[in-house]
Amino acid sequence: MSRRINLAVIPGDGIGQEVVSQGLKVLRAVLPQDVKLETQEYDFGAKRYHATGETLTDADLEQLKAHDAILLGAIGDPSVPSGVLERGFLLKLRFAFDHHVNLRPSKLLPGVGSPLAGRPEIDFVVVREGTEGPYTGNGGTIRKGTPHEVATEVSVNTAFGVERVVRDAFARAQARPRKKITLVHKNNVLAFAGHLWTNVFNEVAKEFPDVTTDYIHVDAATIYLVTDPGRFDVIVTDNLFGDIITDLAAAVSGGIGVAASGNINPSGEFPSMFEPVHGSAPDIAGQGKADPTATVLSVALLLRHLDYEDEAVRIEEAVAADLGERGETTRTTEEIGDALAVRV
Amino acid sequence: MSRRINLAVIPGDGIGQEVVSQGLKVLRAVLPQDVKLETQEYDFGAKRYHATGETLTDADLEQLKAHDAILLGAIGDPSVPSGVLERGFLLKLRFAFDHHVNLRPSKLLPGVGSPLAGRPEIDFVVVREGTEGPYTGNGGTIRKGTPHEVATEVSVNTAFGVERVVRDAFARAQARPRKKITLVHKNNVLAFAGHLWTNVFNEVAKEFPDVTTDYIHVDAATIYLVTDPGRFDVIVTDNLFGDIITDLAAAVSGGIGVAASGNINPSGEFPSMFEPVHGSAPDIAGQGKADPTATVLSVALLLRHLDYEDEAVRIEEAVAADLGERGETTRTTEEIGDALAVRV
Ligand SMILES: CC(C)[C@H](C(=O)O)[C@@H](O)C(=O)O
Ligand SMILES: CC(C)[C@H](C(=O)O)[C@@H](O)C(=O)O
Repeated sequence: MSRRINLAVIPGDGIGQEVVSQGLKVLRAVLPQDVKLETQEYDFGAKRYHATGETLTDADLEQLKAHDAILLGAIGDPSVPSGVLERGFLLKLRFAFDHHVNLRPSKLLPGVGSPLAGRPEIDFVVVREGTEGPYTGNGGTIRKGTPHEVATEVSVNTAFGVERVVRDAFARAQARPRKKITLVHKNNVLAFAGHLWTNVFNEVAKEFPDVTTDYIHVDAATIYLVTDPGRFDVIVTDNLFGDIITDLAAAVSGGIGVAASGNINPSGEFPSMFEPVHGSAPDIAGQGKADPTATVLSVALLLRHLDYEDEAVRIEEAVAADLGERGETTRTTEEIGDALAVRV
Repeated sequence: MSRRINLAVIPGDGIGQEVVSQGLKVLRAVLPQDVKLETQEYDFGAKRYHATGETLTDADLEQLKAHDAILLGAIGDPSVPSGVLERGFLLKLRFAFDHHVNLRPSKLLPGVGSPLAGRPEIDFVVVREGTEGPYTGNGGTIRKGTPHEVATEVSVNTAFGVERVVRDAFARAQARPRKKITLVHKNNVLAFAGHLWTNVFNEVAKEFPDVTTDYIHVDAATIYLVTDPGRFDVIVTDNLFGDIITDLAAAVSGGIGVAASGNINPSGEFPSMFEPVHGSAPDIAGQGKADPTATVLSVALLLRHLDYEDEAVRIEEAVAADLGERGETTRTTEEIGDALAVRV
């Protein structure tokens, strides 16, 4: 039986091309010979936007749909007004492909520097809702530009949307040794959404009696992330809170150089997308300075999603081993990619 | 000429009474003899809620209005459903008295432990908007408790509300040696509110040509708060982002044991309220274990607001000196209060 992965590759802007090349190198190195890897590259990002004014068309979405998964480098460039590519490409894709499980693991690996004194143990995963909350673009502006302007943002939360991501997170917690899940919200102030989230969380909890549950307000969660990150195992939270705490989580667990993420459609109806948490870092683009580790770890998430569990683990072990030996040496993007490709 | 401070005192719940007593002790010690301090205590909090079902009535507000300022310990108890006292008392008071400048300084003082490796220099102040954003209680729920429930939260932002807090923050930045201000928002995603905030910020900036401006997305701000907090001088941000980053800011700059805050109405139309950032900590209440330092520093903010600048500075210097000598010794709430009262 021969297997096949049909991958869409979106290098994007800035360091995107460099890190994605290394991600693909490691992917090729880890895949068994009988797996045929087909890749198709797409030119989304700042260049295409400047040339055509397009960020992501319906025809693009049709093409992307045919793939098994998507690997993305980074999208964004200072030459494009803030928000255009974020909303016109990144968020549009998450919504179009219903990427409601935004998976962001945080693990402080040996050898990796941490801004936290005492290097506490950190090994948790944030399940961030990806298709609701204040990210829906609901809201509006009246009397724009006048002293009487009113601008609103509407956070939309549905039982359907909350339940599916909460259930996904509980299943992930159940599969982990500590079997603990923490809901992060602000239900004492955002009482409408907070009630829905808390209620659904408590209902779904009944289906997972072996999973320990906890609740923390988002403001307090940022305190624990720097004073006691070991208390977290699986965190489930809304789109905006998830955006905020996963950057902090990345910072305390080795930095965004090693933070991977998956924008997952668990049903498989649409391809899922995997990308490093970091941005396009235009200041160091093209210099071979970017650390491709976060992209390589995103490839591991991609493989796990496509049921190549052994290969995913091999990448994660290779990264752990490599990081453990890195020390103070500075290597190029390519050297790190080569080293990881050899190890897997 | 004899002067007079007519202070409302709200000890509240848990450790509130203990820390407020020490705050008042230090206040009495620092005030010049010619200043007459009148205090009136109010019994808001869990006990009153259980006894009467009330959190804060119109008659209460009338009474509170007559004071020059309010000193609050902490409100909140596990016996009261989450949100009842937060919304029914704390937020109600902030909105009723138009406390639109929520001032939260962060300074890592010598001798104070930090969760950050290398103890970076930290000395900034967050000006959090206090009367708008998702804190307005706008939003709602349909089909509550059913699989078709939809819950919304509406962030309301007005040019009037944004401009006054942004201008206040610029003035504070101008008065500080580094003269730098950072707007924290998420204007690439929350484009309606983001545009208003960014636009007003840029307009007001023109009136303060000697103030350096910066903009950072809220998610990235959490990274900088742990990797490079020295980059911040004054931060201005919305109600929710301010809630989140000030807890993180407190955590990195010595913990909530020393984090003070002011809920300020700069016009003086209503009395401003000063309180420690920490909560009522019912687990250690009544044991003399609570650190009153955050309350004492809130008293300093209160004095500064009432134009007792010298006295405010004396308290801050006393706290800095005391913290510098604290070391590992464990002192009771009262011992710390006594030590600070002696020093001022
Ligand atoms: C670029 C931006 C739209 C995005 C988000 O807010 O989700 C990013 O911050 C992230 O976390 O993936
Ligand atoms: C208790 C709660 C209502 C409050 C807030 O969210 O503003 C608290 O977290 C704070 O920061 O003062």
